Amino acid sequence: MEYKAIRFVKRPETEITPDIFETVTLQTPELADREYLVKQTHISLDPAMRTWMSEEPGYIEPVAIGDVMRCLGVGEVVESRNPDFPVGSRVAGVSGWAEYVLGGEDWQIVPPELPVEALMCVMNLPGLTAYVGLNVVARPVAGETIVISGAAGSVGSLVGQMAKAEGLRVIGVAGTDEKCQWLEEELGFDKAINYRSANLEAQLAAATPDGVDIYFENTGGPIQQLVFDCMNRFGRISVCGMISDYNRATPAPGPSWVDINLKALRVEGFVVVDHYDKAPQAVEMLTSLLQGGKLKYRAHTLHGLDSAIEGVNLLFSGENKGKLLVAL
Amino acid sequence: MEYKAIRFVKRPETEITPDIFETVTLQTPELADREYLVKQTHISLDPAMRTWMSEEPGYIEPVAIGDVMRCLGVGEVVESRNPDFPVGSRVAGVSGWAEYVLGGEDWQIVPPELPVEALMCVMNLPGLTAYVGLNVVARPVAGETIVISGAAGSVGSLVGQMAKAEGLRVIGVAGTDEKCQWLEEELGFDKAINYRSANLEAQLAAATPDGVDIYFENTGGPIQQLVFDCMNRFGRISVCGMISDYNRATPAPGPSWVDINLKALRVEGFVVVDHYDKAPQAVEMLTSLLQGGKLKYRAHTLHGLDSAIEGVNLLFSGENKGKLLVAL
Repeated sequence: MEYKAIRFVKRPETEITPDIFETVTLQTPELADREYLVKQTHISLDPAMRTWMSEEPGYIEPVAIGDVMRCLGVGEVVESRNPDFPVGSRVAGVSGWAEYVLGGEDWQIVPPELPVEALMCVMNLPGLTAYVGLNVVARPVAGETIVISGAAGSVGSLVGQMAKAEGLRVIGVAGTDEKCQWLEEELGFDKAINYRSANLEAQLAAATPDGVDIYFENTGGPIQQLVFDCMNRFGRISVCGMISDYNRATPAPGPSWVDINLKALRVEGFVVVDHYDKAPQAVEMLTSLLQGGKLKYRAHTLHGLDSAIEGVNLLFSGENKGKLLVAL
Repeated sequence: MEYKAIRFVKRPETEITPDIFETVTLQTPELADREYLVKQTHISLDPAMRTWMSEEPGYIEPVAIGDVMRCLGVGEVVESRNPDFPVGSRVAGVSGWAEYVLGGEDWQIVPPELPVEALMCVMNLPGLTAYVGLNVVARPVAGETIVISGAAGSVGSLVGQMAKAEGLRVIGVAGTDEKCQWLEEELGFDKAINYRSANLEAQLAAATPDGVDIYFENTGGPIQQLVFDCMNRFGRISVCGMISDYNRATPAPGPSWVDINLKALRVEGFVVVDHYDKAPQAVEMLTSLLQGGKLKYRAHTLHGLDSAIEGVNLLFSGENKGKLLVAL
């Protein structure tokens, strides 16, 4: 059977451009013992992909030149020599930009009643990432104030809703008025600030009268220093992503460590792949919030495999509205 | 009884200059109930003093304009209306730049057999600071590599010796060849690097073939970024001091947070005044190391109260050789 796939053929120096990919037509293979073939219905586009394109992301093997581009995917098993993944199962795991992929032994079987958006926007990596960054790294206490950059993104929007459920004052930072409105009116954030607007510093001060106890960092950029300057003593900064710097050859410097010293701050980074062991607790919390109607999400769905090539840049321009998916 | 004291009369904008102090002659007061008078024998000069001179050090009340300059001191009780601190006791606590001071209820009685240098260089704040920064904040594991900036300073020299005792590979960074020699030959550091020498990056790489797991930061300055770039995944940075930036109106920026994210680093600051509850464990460890001959120290002693005024800058130029004290 022929299928379309997209190969990664050149490392980007800064921005992701179409010429680093190549669309090819491949043949589905004969299955060996314990292999199974998945017809993907959706793939996920995530900021972390940019780091996988670099020669040394450090925490994971980079995508090799010539390989099908790596991503997370969900689909249906259409052929199987693995009794653990019978034909007809709905499965999700680390896959590639391709219509068909071989599933792995570490893939998960997804209950058919879970909507694909709930799976990709919440139960999959965004939910685990939000859980780890908030509850394992930042460790909030009810009554504290959290500021979240990239708050309308797949992770940020979950972090804010979890933090509300845990009794925090939640301030989101996003890049459009529409996103800010969504955060305040739909997701229940106490306040959302458009980082492209004027008087950022004054807006931030007005939104955080008791200072900032937790900064959940998804973006980097000028907002970083502004929030950093509002940190209270013993504040925690959970460094989940630095999307504004992934495309730069030389990232912008960070804040001086003088305040880390004098305010006894903790700035701690994490990568979700190091925390798969927390998935059971994360799933438990996310499921309970979902069932209680306390977790809203939205998917921004592109259509057709080729749409990934240009579409991935929506993450970096901030033009996506919600979790970026490609429906195949 | 008349005595000499030094008042803090003007906040420094950058460097500490003699005109921010004023030497005065005062009279010892009549003692109220529970007060006691201490004739100081030694006072300690520490980098943290520079932060106490700023309007908002954040973690402690700044020294008020017109007050006697704050410091740690040790001396003998010469008059007392407090039965807990009888005349003749040797006591230590937060005092001031003065020949006589009123001791506080929170002062400690020091065993007479403990040499004043061991008290001021080890058992007092330097030891607790080193213990907290290493064992509470960085939490080392035997076999790891630690790099210590300001390694020949009062705290850094203890951190290195504690880390050796805990089975780490210990690299010190200091500002003169003499200090480096002392660290390697007397204190048993695996390697010491003079940050004023050439090819710092290459020297650091050669000294840390397995990368850096812990960076104990006392200084800031260009060495910060160089060590930061050598950090291993899951590395910890204990931000104890930023002496090279205390005098600056605008501190230098720090490293980008991209590597904090991707390498899952933890950069955590602390101030010893928040950790007095760990003093018993620290004293136990320090005493055991001292008795085992595994803890060496040296004091750089100035003479006469007035020597503090110029002497405090030895800390910032790095010209002190060992813990800076003033003998009165």
